[in-house]
Amino acid sequence: MGYPETFTGFCCQSAKTWNQYEKHELTPKKFEESDVDVQIECCGVCGSDVHTVTGGWGEFKGPLCVGHEVVGKVVKVGKNVTKFKEGDRVGVGAQVWACLKCDVCKSANENYCPHLVDTYNSRNPFPVDGSRGIGGWASHIRAHEYFVFKIPDQIPSHEVAPMLCAGITTYSPLVRAGVGPGKKVAILGIGGLGHLAIQWANALGAEVYALTHSPNKVESAQKLGAKKVIVTTEENWDKDYKFFFDYILNCSDATHKMDVAQYMSTLKIGADFHLVGLGDEPLPTLPATCFVNNGAKITGSHLGNNQEMNAMLKLAAEKNVRAVVQTIDISEDGCKEAVERMKKGGVHYRLTLTGFDKAFGFPGY
Amino acid sequence: MGYPETFTGFCCQSAKTWNQYEKHELTPKKFEESDVDVQIECCGVCGSDVHTVTGGWGEFKGPLCVGHEVVGKVVKVGKNVTKFKEGDRVGVGAQVWACLKCDVCKSANENYCPHLVDTYNSRNPFPVDGSRGIGGWASHIRAHEYFVFKIPDQIPSHEVAPMLCAGITTYSPLVRAGVGPGKKVAILGIGGLGHLAIQWANALGAEVYALTHSPNKVESAQKLGAKKVIVTTEENWDKDYKFFFDYILNCSDATHKMDVAQYMSTLKIGADFHLVGLGDEPLPTLPATCFVNNGAKITGSHLGNNQEMNAMLKLAAEKNVRAVVQTIDISEDGCKEAVERMKKGGVHYRLTLTGFDKAFGFPGY
Repeated sequence: MGYPETFTGFCCQSAKTWNQYEKHELTPKKFEESDVDVQIECCGVCGSDVHTVTGGWGEFKGPLCVGHEVVGKVVKVGKNVTKFKEGDRVGVGAQVWACLKCDVCKSANENYCPHLVDTYNSRNPFPVDGSRGIGGWASHIRAHEYFVFKIPDQIPSHEVAPMLCAGITTYSPLVRAGVGPGKKVAILGIGGLGHLAIQWANALGAEVYALTHSPNKVESAQKLGAKKVIVTTEENWDKDYKFFFDYILNCSDATHKMDVAQYMSTLKIGADFHLVGLGDEPLPTLPATCFVNNGAKITGSHLGNNQEMNAMLKLAAEKNVRAVVQTIDISEDGCKEAVERMKKGGVHYRLTLTGFDKAFGFPGY
Repeated sequence: MGYPETFTGFCCQSAKTWNQYEKHELTPKKFEESDVDVQIECCGVCGSDVHTVTGGWGEFKGPLCVGHEVVGKVVKVGKNVTKFKEGDRVGVGAQVWACLKCDVCKSANENYCPHLVDTYNSRNPFPVDGSRGIGGWASHIRAHEYFVFKIPDQIPSHEVAPMLCAGITTYSPLVRAGVGPGKKVAILGIGGLGHLAIQWANALGAEVYALTHSPNKVESAQKLGAKKVIVTTEENWDKDYKFFFDYILNCSDATHKMDVAQYMSTLKIGADFHLVGLGDEPLPTLPATCFVNNGAKITGSHLGNNQEMNAMLKLAAEKNVRAVVQTIDISEDGCKEAVERMKKGGVHYRLTLTGFDKAFGFPGY
């Protein structure tokens, strides 16, 4: 067998063997008339992949093929597909389906549709056949066209791949919060998410402050567009920033180690401390009084919608936003290296798995 | 000595003797030209008073006179006072001063002024003389006129007193959240705060749902204006309310015992779980994923501003909103009874200390 009957993916069997991968033949969901099949060229490595395979976000059933920052070439479109044709270079992110009929979807919040299907290890199965998704560390991916996005010609595949999840995860809350000229925005945690968030906030016209506990990230954060970098291991760093920020985007997944009330004290009245980095650990306990001094808010979000994804890709093309990536060729060893490096930390700033044509022996290779 | 040199107040000496009160002569802050002196007629008993005297919110220095839901008669006005004259019936709440010059104050958020002076046990002293405030379980209170409010003639003093703190605490977040016609609003915790919140949300035109763990509050909550009362001890109460509420106002001070994520799951996309009941205990730990399903927010607030206080009193007069109170005559025994009943719980719904004329031997008594 093989495509189109089956896809081939590098899979993990269980949380105990989180760093071991082998090729499996996988049966995709039934093809529907709004679906698009994509032959994958490369796929980013996301913190979510690591949280999932290590069991940090709960148990999973192997063999599991992760990966949800997919770029590739359209090889098949259903009869109802209007936006894509074979050969188009497209991206697929962390969501592949929503009902598009409920009140949530109709309010352009399909990223919160109660029936949504995540790209892999989804809380919901596909209604059409009850199957679950196959991630992007694979030969192909199948998604409803509403969750497929045209990639601007200017951006190389390996540099755009991480935007399909890390990009939209940081871009959407910034635009929903009205970040732009005249706003002072803090990006907290300068890693896979944060290095894109600095660029978005800058491209949107805001005054960007990077908050990091790593003095060795100061120069890099400045290059990415931060006007100022605040090292939060310095005592009383918050003293000069009371009622200062219009928005804090917390991109770290170590919120459980933070003095959240201290960060919140630097916000203007009613401003948001917004979480997008979702760690394995619960949030720390907070004094209820942390809201009393400035009416600050703790908020969070999940991905973004279709319109935001397209606007983000357009902005990236126009303003030269790029994921800073190192590449690893996909293979059993490559997948192992990728998750181990991510778990260990210190990737600056993102990994993309490449060389899919060789690994899966695509025609023409 | 006596007024105007000194005020007389019923005071608590320390957290160890939280339920023991005796009369003390207290020296008020220096009188300034924007100040108003009020001879007190009655004063509400607030959860804050109990949290303070029991040491739940930290240590304090005795003798401390608490009370910040004050109604009385103006007996002196400074030269710069324009809004009040001797004899006016006025109220004073939990704040008696702010700088009115900083950016926070200029944005009509003087309730978050970094220099604000709380009515008693304030984090900041008065700039004029470094003294701290004297609460309303006393013969008189002195406040900047910006924190003094004319009481509408229609509302009896003992029924309006609790609005000066419990009222504004619940009214302000509702109006700042745009609660009104077409909005489904949940009031969580039907007690001193919640029984007013139901009435405000109703008076503002919203569809009001009361959430309580007490089946015996169902009838009372309906009478106060709740369209429906949901008893949250019933298993899966949340099942029929996913993506349902536009706003939850959490009026309970037992948030640390709550499954906050369950409540948040009943909110519409991006809607607020708003805290106004501030307990002694920190908030419970939360899975970071509690924000993922609907982008819900955890928010909180402190009192409200001058304009909101006046609008609230006007609304109360027009729509017949009243605090449901039981009264206790102020005395050493009366103060003891008040804090003990509050601490024990089960006050439906608020206490007001009355009989100040007798206790302090005001002229004419």
